[in-house]
Amino acid sequence: MKFTINRQKFTDVLNNVSRAIPGKTTIPILTGIKIEVNPDGVTLIGSDADISIESFLSNQDESLQLNIKEQGSIVVGARLFNDIIRKLPTNEILLESDSNYLLTITSGPAVFTLNGQDGAAYPHLPEIDFENTVSLPTLAFKEMINHTIFSASNQESRPILTGLNLSIHPDYISGVATDSHRLSRREIPVELNTDLLDLTNVTIPKKTVTELVRIVEDDQKLQMLVNEQQVIFILENLTIYSRLLEGNYPDTDRLIPSNHQTQLVVNANDFLAAIERASLMSHQSKNNIVQLSIKDQAVELSVSGNERGRASEDIQLKAVSGQDLLISFNPDYMRDALKSFNGIDIKIDFQTAVRPMLLSALDGSDLAHNELLQLLTPIRTHQS
Amino acid sequence: MKFTINRQKFTDVLNNVSRAIPGKTTIPILTGIKIEVNPDGVTLIGSDADISIESFLSNQDESLQLNIKEQGSIVVGARLFNDIIRKLPTNEILLESDSNYLLTITSGPAVFTLNGQDGAAYPHLPEIDFENTVSLPTLAFKEMINHTIFSASNQESRPILTGLNLSIHPDYISGVATDSHRLSRREIPVELNTDLLDLTNVTIPKKTVTELVRIVEDDQKLQMLVNEQQVIFILENLTIYSRLLEGNYPDTDRLIPSNHQTQLVVNANDFLAAIERASLMSHQSKNNIVQLSIKDQAVELSVSGNERGRASEDIQLKAVSGQDLLISFNPDYMRDALKSFNGIDIKIDFQTAVRPMLLSALDGSDLAHNELLQLLTPIRTHQS
Repeated sequence: MKFTINRQKFTDVLNNVSRAIPGKTTIPILTGIKIEVNPDGVTLIGSDADISIESFLSNQDESLQLNIKEQGSIVVGARLFNDIIRKLPTNEILLESDSNYLLTITSGPAVFTLNGQDGAAYPHLPEIDFENTVSLPTLAFKEMINHTIFSASNQESRPILTGLNLSIHPDYISGVATDSHRLSRREIPVELNTDLLDLTNVTIPKKTVTELVRIVEDDQKLQMLVNEQQVIFILENLTIYSRLLEGNYPDTDRLIPSNHQTQLVVNANDFLAAIERASLMSHQSKNNIVQLSIKDQAVELSVSGNERGRASEDIQLKAVSGQDLLISFNPDYMRDALKSFNGIDIKIDFQTAVRPMLLSALDGSDLAHNELLQLLTPIRTHQS
Repeated sequence: MKFTINRQKFTDVLNNVSRAIPGKTTIPILTGIKIEVNPDGVTLIGSDADISIESFLSNQDESLQLNIKEQGSIVVGARLFNDIIRKLPTNEILLESDSNYLLTITSGPAVFTLNGQDGAAYPHLPEIDFENTVSLPTLAFKEMINHTIFSASNQESRPILTGLNLSIHPDYISGVATDSHRLSRREIPVELNTDLLDLTNVTIPKKTVTELVRIVEDDQKLQMLVNEQQVIFILENLTIYSRLLEGNYPDTDRLIPSNHQTQLVVNANDFLAAIERASLMSHQSKNNIVQLSIKDQAVELSVSGNERGRASEDIQLKAVSGQDLLISFNPDYMRDALKSFNGIDIKIDFQTAVRPMLLSALDGSDLAHNELLQLLTPIRTHQS
């Protein structure tokens, strides 16, 4: 292979493809990036076996200043290759490989020669059947991921809980993540031809959706293809392939409580600030617990004494109704849940001190009723 | 003690004083910050035993909104205290301690109570004899530190080399740092009454001068006091106390070569960029060596083959004179030395492949002749 290309444009694409490449792996070739040149353009591929990212640099895109002189392919160590490309002195760079898999990079007076490997040794990506893709609303889909994925489990003991579960309906998509201590559910309205999809309920690894959020710009077109083996997200010139998590996702709808004994209405950011303050003190002890006391219309957040000290704060409310209550919870989980509401006024519904709390948008806010739910299990204390 | 103060102003001072406070220490009270209240104001002290930073918040400074209600002193854990102050909800905060060394911090609806210790248990700082201080040119003094301190040793085997050596003369100060592989020397012109100083040659720990650079603003007045025990830097409302390094600093002037066999003139930034590129490849092998070849007026920088590949670059020169030469060195040391010249044109003087290289400003540049010198020992290779 042999081609010249604009260094800045090449760097941008390299950065995206490299997101899939693992720092450590038991499959040495995956620490490399595959560069494949054919008459139409240059394809770059990075992969960690679970996720693969492929980007195509087309001959037709004049901004790339791509000039293909010879076809071929090679795999070179991704990190060193990226560092070199980033620091080269000229805008036009020449990449050329020989039959010994040596890649020579030339940029003005600087010449680097890298030991590479045969491109044919790199794992193959599946062919995409473009007829079966559905279009997603990019911004809303990214928001759905951001509002839920923090609740996914980090424990490999129940692998299915380490992902984002998508239920795909003809007029909406529901995203759910839970680690069994907390649960996040976000629904986004979208008209989809679900006949095009092999599956309508899939669980996607956390890394896949978090990388998707980082890579996709808000104004880019986003398409999705789902089949038994994998989910594929298709952007203009960039494709993300990911395995699905195996197994049945638990039925979470039945966990959402439909009534409450006590209800607070608070501004999400005001309550968040109080939670973050209290957590400074709760983090000083191993069990990281804050306590919320609702009594005679007054609400106090407190951290009882540990060896460093104690903290308390009267919470500013929009409204409070129902029975008095004393409930304890992990402030870090509450913080994540509150952040997802972006500072709007919310309801917090309580049943008892041992039943989950439900956070939802106040009617009349930007978020329609129940579009975003955050469920949080309390911590039982001696008082509960 | 009991006082109210403006939270933002208090935070700024806390941040500076906390710079001295160690993350880990064998003296538990030093993880705390000392707060001492007298009728004139509030004094904050942080220390790691080697360096102490003291700041005085005066009653006279109206921007502090300081209102002293009761004298006294306390020591509280610095990190938690700082985190709490930073996150409090109101601008005015109240700090109050009781006879059990409990510190209560009140900010609007939020109340924190911290377990503290008796302020009298905290180490005492010496009295300053303000008649014996000399005034330093702040900006030039900071520059002197930045241009040299990277050459100080990180090895405790020769403690004296871990600091910055200052020679104080009536009309200039010379700062030298060396780890015996490289040496940096920066002289700054300044009129000083050296009679006021007990010592005119002192070696200051690296941490002291790097913290000084971070804390002192370019336009602040800076005074220095030196005695047998310590060096003290005095800013308005802030004082840095530091022990000195014990022992005699080696005579480094005799190490500076006075002649050369080969001389290059290059732009420091152009050469720096080439060095940084080459070092991407040299970092791939353990011995981290780059080679400079000067032959027939052409200069090439190269990294010979390692298992990842190789690199070479023709260096753009302003001038070259003298004998041909092949010399090897650590590119990271060269990078640090080059950075200190801030992109001006410099001379690099060579004697032989085994004698130190000397970097200095080209005559007629912003830096007067020999005001800044960087000396770099080459690495002997099989070819040397």
